[in-house]
Amino acid sequence: MKILGIDPGSRVTGFGLIDANKLKFNYIASGCIRTTGELTVRITTIFIEIDEIIKKYQPEVVVIERAFMRPDRPNPDAAIKLGHARGAIIVATGVNAISVVEYSPNQIKKAVLGRGHAAKEQVSYMVQKSLQLNTAPQADAADALAGAICHAYHCL
Amino acid sequence: MKILGIDPGSRVTGFGLIDANKLKFNYIASGCIRTTGELTVRITTIFIEIDEIIKKYQPEVVVIERAFMRPDRPNPDAAIKLGHARGAIIVATGVNAISVVEYSPNQIKKAVLGRGHAAKEQVSYMVQKSLQLNTAPQADAADALAGAICHAYHCL
Repeated sequence: MKILGIDPGSRVTGFGLIDANKLKFNYIASGCIRTTGELTVRITTIFIEIDEIIKKYQPEVVVIERAFMRPDRPNPDAAIKLGHARGAIIVATGVNAISVVEYSPNQIKKAVLGRGHAAKEQVSYMVQKSLQLNTAPQADAADALAGAICHAYHCL
Repeated sequence: MKILGIDPGSRVTGFGLIDANKLKFNYIASGCIRTTGELTVRITTIFIEIDEIIKKYQPEVVVIERAFMRPDRPNPDAAIKLGHARGAIIVATGVNAISVVEYSPNQIKKAVLGRGHAAKEQVSYMVQKSLQLNTAPQADAADALAGAICHAYHCL
């Protein structure tokens, strides 16, 4: 089963693709979509890039980290911006008829680390180990791969 | 100049199209996109419908109400949901190479009513009068038309 994990952000969106076959995960690809310029350009770029990745790799499912806002530090502006990026990604999955699953940040961390709280570097390190990569992936790509790994565990 | 106003919402997105020619505004079309079902379907529906409206009417510009969250009542969940709808709309404008302009809710109300605070029904009534419509448009369509009228005033 080919799984595409995505870590949405209006400036940097990470993506990571794995092939999950029983308990074995094979790394396929990962990277970061970096956007600059004005709102329309940035959000449309995310859509175009994710649409291309879906058409190229044809994943069975897309995993997105559930939007999580700290209730003690509500930031509606950041939430709107994250929503824009997520909206572009959701449209890319919808027009390609790919189903989307969401996991909370804690569920994803638990799946790769065994616990719900961890530093970014720890996620990156465990993703590198799980997928037997020579180097640690960039933080946003690692989070995306962690989402894909989380879904693989949930399906097995 | 053909102007498409859009009032984004994850459940109901209003749209309204006018033709602005010097100080005369002609009503072209308006309506509401109502969505149900799960997230991907709802957000993709907004994209598909707005994409169709843009292709059908070919507006020169799209006007979206700037996302406004009351600072005294922050609601990150509502902000994320609004962001999803706005993201889908922005992608629809981006893939059609139409520019987007944003006005605050207060700017839009001031343009149609002469003041920044007003009830929904007042906006609807003034939009009906400005465009010489036989009946008042639905609230979300009226807000979208008000956005288009606001932009027309700013360009004249």
